Parts: sequence; structure tokens; C-alpha cells
Amino acid sequence: MKNISRIQNRINSELEKLTVLMGNQPPAELYEPIAYTLSLGGKRIRPLLVIMAAEMFGGDMEEAIYPAIGIEVFHNFTLVHDDLMDNSPLRRNQPTVHRKWNKNIAILSADAMMVKAYELVCKTGSSHLREVLAVFNSTALQVCEGQQLDMNYETSLQVSIDQYIRMINLKTAVLLAGSLKIGALLAGANPEDAKCLYAFGENMGIAFQLQDDILDVYGEKEKFGKEPGRDIVANKKTYLLLKAIELAQAEVSEELTKWIAASQFDEQKKVKAIIEIYDSLCIRQLAEQEMMKYYRQGLGSLEKISIGPEKKQDLIAFVQTLMHRVY
Amino acid sequence: MKNISRIQNRINSELEKLTVLMGNQPPAELYEPIAYTLSLGGKRIRPLLVIMAAEMFGGDMEEAIYPAIGIEVFHNFTLVHDDLMDNSPLRRNQPTVHRKWNKNIAILSADAMMVKAYELVCKTGSSHLREVLAVFNSTALQVCEGQQLDMNYETSLQVSIDQYIRMINLKTAVLLAGSLKIGALLAGANPEDAKCLYAFGENMGIAFQLQDDILDVYGEKEKFGKEPGRDIVANKKTYLLLKAIELAQAEVSEELTKWIAASQFDEQKKVKAIIEIYDSLCIRQLAEQEMMKYYRQGLGSLEKISIGPEKKQDLIAFVQTLMHRVY
Repeated sequence: MKNISRIQNRINSELEKLTVLMGNQPPAELYEPIAYTLSLGGKRIRPLLVIMAAEMFGGDMEEAIYPAIGIEVFHNFTLVHDDLMDNSPLRRNQPTVHRKWNKNIAILSADAMMVKAYELVCKTGSSHLREVLAVFNSTALQVCEGQQLDMNYETSLQVSIDQYIRMINLKTAVLLAGSLKIGALLAGANPEDAKCLYAFGENMGIAFQLQDDILDVYGEKEKFGKEPGRDIVANKKTYLLLKAIELAQAEVSEELTKWIAASQFDEQKKVKAIIEIYDSLCIRQLAEQEMMKYYRQGLGSLEKISIGPEKKQDLIAFVQTLMHRVY
Repeated sequence: MKNISRIQNRINSELEKLTVLMGNQPPAELYEPIAYTLSLGGKRIRPLLVIMAAEMFGGDMEEAIYPAIGIEVFHNFTLVHDDLMDNSPLRRNQPTVHRKWNKNIAILSADAMMVKAYELVCKTGSSHLREVLAVFNSTALQVCEGQQLDMNYETSLQVSIDQYIRMINLKTAVLLAGSLKIGALLAGANPEDAKCLYAFGENMGIAFQLQDDILDVYGEKEKFGKEPGRDIVANKKTYLLLKAIELAQAEVSEELTKWIAASQFDEQKKVKAIIEIYDSLCIRQLAEQEMMKYYRQGLGSLEKISIGPEKKQDLIAFVQTLMHRVY
């Protein structure tokens, strides 16, 4: 993965420069939270995908670096507003912007972050500016739609698996797909290849989210980095819970409904009981099958791209590291 | 003003189309608040300025209409977030988005509105796309800075007139200036002329805001459309209050401080007392002088533009109608 480290180093150094710049810009109340958010790190997968896609089609990292950083800034903008809307206290184990400062600062500094994202995406060569912006605009709008659906489903009792997949596609997969497509366009890939790469990103994005859903329940704490069962405790509508609701019958269904409705409960007992229900319904296997379906569909889309297979190796290897946490 | 009506009709019909489109787009929780906000109307000065500026330099309304609408959508995005941050119950005599729906919907639907604004601004001919986006990006960022300064100054006891003018410039004037500059660029105006038109817009924007400050205290309710004295009751840091704080001495200063600090008071008495202080310090005259200074500076910038004076007549006439409410 020497190639990936080289790109990651370039991304990290550019993000550090931006963080310093933001940290010194007045008014501090507006720009410091931006510097803070960018300094929290994260895997920075999206800019990496932009540049990997560009290089895959023979493009130059230096021509893709600013749009790539722009997409990372956009992603961070969504995290600040999402954390505020979800009232989350922590992000990457640090206080969220609305907790460290206040709600108004979380609203406004993230707004400024979105404009900054556009400023960076606009640093695209003139021959690709319009098409890159078109992908960025439509992706950004879909991310908002996904977050809205996620909030809608929180209070809705009946969410189908199809609705759930559509929601996670909008909320997380399309930005990965859009990153790849933008990278391809920057390198002058033909529209058909760019479309296939987008489909690859969408499918992989869904597979990653399904993996997250599975890991929350069946992941080992050491590898996953989080206490397992958090989704269960919070009644979070994951693929696993929705599938269980769909399949459970008679007393199993009653038991499931009882746990979901319970306002006071022993957390460990609830996690144990729900996992027993999942196991009795083979939910883990079904979720893994679903995840693998999207994973394979993604690889199928990648195969269709009209470049030599050796050029696709880095991307496949990278996706495998992301999927490798369990499989 | 036949010319202006023609442009206004075009703007209104395009905004109506967009409103219908947004009103029918799923998810409704995201897009309906956008339709609602756009349907509340307003003077729609910014898109008018874009098109007037374009036509002034021989440009075509049809080439400017979408960026013009984009700027109006951006302005409406700022109103939704500003109203939320200020916790305002009403906008144009109707419930604000966060009151009619909720805070999360106000955050997210306005985010989507900002993306929509960019989508519309991107409907710019390729030869001007980059420069139009550069103006739009920097203006959008300045508007965020202005709102941040406005929030900072609310809780700060010492705000200088210079700081105040800079704040209103960022918060309101630069978007008027940016609208004019974008119109000029769309019509292929030379950079020097575009710069002068921007300066015209900045100066006029500051003059308008100073006029608003004056009208809140000295306007006739019938003409102004609002109950006068609202700024006084709320201790809003207007040019008038800041100038009075600057000039007041000894017992007048004490009296002023007392009213500002009072948490319980008779509103009418406070308004009357503050106006007496203003009158004793000739605050109205000073504010009018300041306003006229910016108004004249604006006209001076317009004069420098290298086109025939007859082409500037519509813009001058329009600005006069905006200033005509009292003068």
C-alpha cells in the first residue's frame, strides 16, 4: 500500500495547511470550529477515493488534490450539522462543535465550511469544472435527503429494508460514489467508465454500512473500537433490527416489540435478549449475505470499466482493507 | 419603471416554478420548507440587481436569470438559519421555518437550499462560470462572517461605529454588491467596471441599512410598515445607539446606560426617553449624514463606470426608490 500512503500523506499535509489557515482567520468564532473539526482527523477516505480514481485513469494527483480536499471539508460540514441535529456529545472521542461552543456556532461555522468546500471544489481545471460541480451538487443534495430520511425513520415504526437501503445509499454511499466519479472526470475518463465507477462506489458504500450494522452487534470490541450493542440499546433501525422485525413471528415478535418499547431496562440484558432473537432468525447470516451481494455487485461494476485490470488493483486492495475488519 | 417590472415578472415567474418544483419533491420534510420560504415573497432585490447589471452592460436577461435566482435562493437560505439562530418567531409576518416545523428541519432544509443555490448559480455560461463562482463563494463566506460578527456584537458592550459599519457591510451590503458584480461579469463587463459596480453596491447596501436604523426610530408607521422603536426596546446595536453611546457624557450617558441595563421597563417610556437622548445629541442628523455619505460614495463609484450615463439611469432610479421611503 505504498501508493496509498503517498496519497494519504499529500491529503494530510494539505488538510493541515487548511487547518492552520482556518485557525488564524477572523472572526475566530466562525473559523476556529472549522479548524477544530478538521483537526479531529478521521479516515479521510473520500479524498483518497478522488485521487485514486483520478490516478486510475491516468490523471495527476496535483490536479485532483483541491477538489479532493473540498469533498472532505463537505463531509465534515455534514458531520457538524448531523451531530447537532442528533444532539451527539462526541465525535471521534472529542466534544462535538455544538457542545464545545454552542448551537449557533455549530450552525454557522458549518455553513461557512460548506462554502469553503465549494471554494476548494471550484479549484478544478476549466475543462472539467462544470461536470465536477454537477456531480458535487447532486451528491450534496442527496446527502441532505439521506439525513432527512434517517431522521424520518427514527420516529417511524414501519421502515422496509428497501427504504433502509435507499436511505443509507443517500446518506453515506453516494458521497463515496461521487468522490470516485469526480476523480474519474478530473482525469478525463469517458462517461460510461465514470458511471461504472460511481456504481462501484454506491455498492461498496452500502456494503460498508451493512458491515457497520453487523459489527455493532457481532464485532469484537478490540477490533471494532466501540462497545458492541450500542445500536441495540438505542433501538437504532439497522438492517439487522429491520430484518428481525420483518421475520419475527408470534412470541418472538412480541418479545422483540417489548424490548423496543421498554423505556427502563438493563442494557446488558436487552443486548443479550435481542442477540438471541437475531440468532434464532439467522439475522447475522442474512445481513452478511446482503452485504456480500452489494460487495460483489460493486466488483462487477468495477470489472466493466474499460481499463486494464492491473490499474484497478489498488482500489480493490483498498476496499478489501475496509471490508477486512471481519472478513 | 417599465423595465424593472419586466425583469420582476420574469424573476417572479421563475421563482414560482421553482417553488412548485420544490413543493412536489420528496422527501417533503426537506423540500416543503424550501417551497414555503420561497413563497413568502420579499422584495427580491438581489436577482433584480443581477439582471439590471447584466443588461446595463448589454447582457441578456435570459443568460442571467438562473444565477440571479440562485442568489435569491442563497439569500433565503441565510434567512432560515439567521431566524433559527436569532430564535425569531416571524418572517414576513408568517411563522419561521423552525417554528412552523422544527429546528432540525430548519437546519437541514436550509442546507439543501444552499446546495440548490449553487446548482442555479452553476447555470452560467462556461466563459463566465469560474469568475461568477469566485464572486459567489467569497460573498457567501463574507455573509457568514457578518452574521457571526452580528452575534458577537449582541453580547459585547463595546462596539465601535467602524466595527458596526464593517459588520453591516459583510452581513448585508456585500450580497447586493456581489449580485451586481455577477450581473456585470455575466455580460462580459471589464474587471475595472465590475469592481466599480461592486463598490456602488457596497456603499448603497450600507446606506440602506443606516436608513433602516433611522426609520426604526423616526419612520412613520404607515410608510415603514413596522411599529417604530423595536430596535430601541431590544437594545439593538444600531448606528444610532452606538453613536449615542459614543457621544453621551455625564448624566446623559448614565441615563442611557440605565435604560440599556433595565430588565423591566415600560416600553413606550423607554422609547420616548431614548429618542430624547438621541435628539439632544443630534443623532438623527449624524445618522442621515453618514447615510448620505455612503449614498454619494456609491453614486461616485457608479459614475466611474465606462459606459454612457443613460445606461445607468435605471439603476439610479431604482436605488432612489429604495432610498425614497423618507428622503
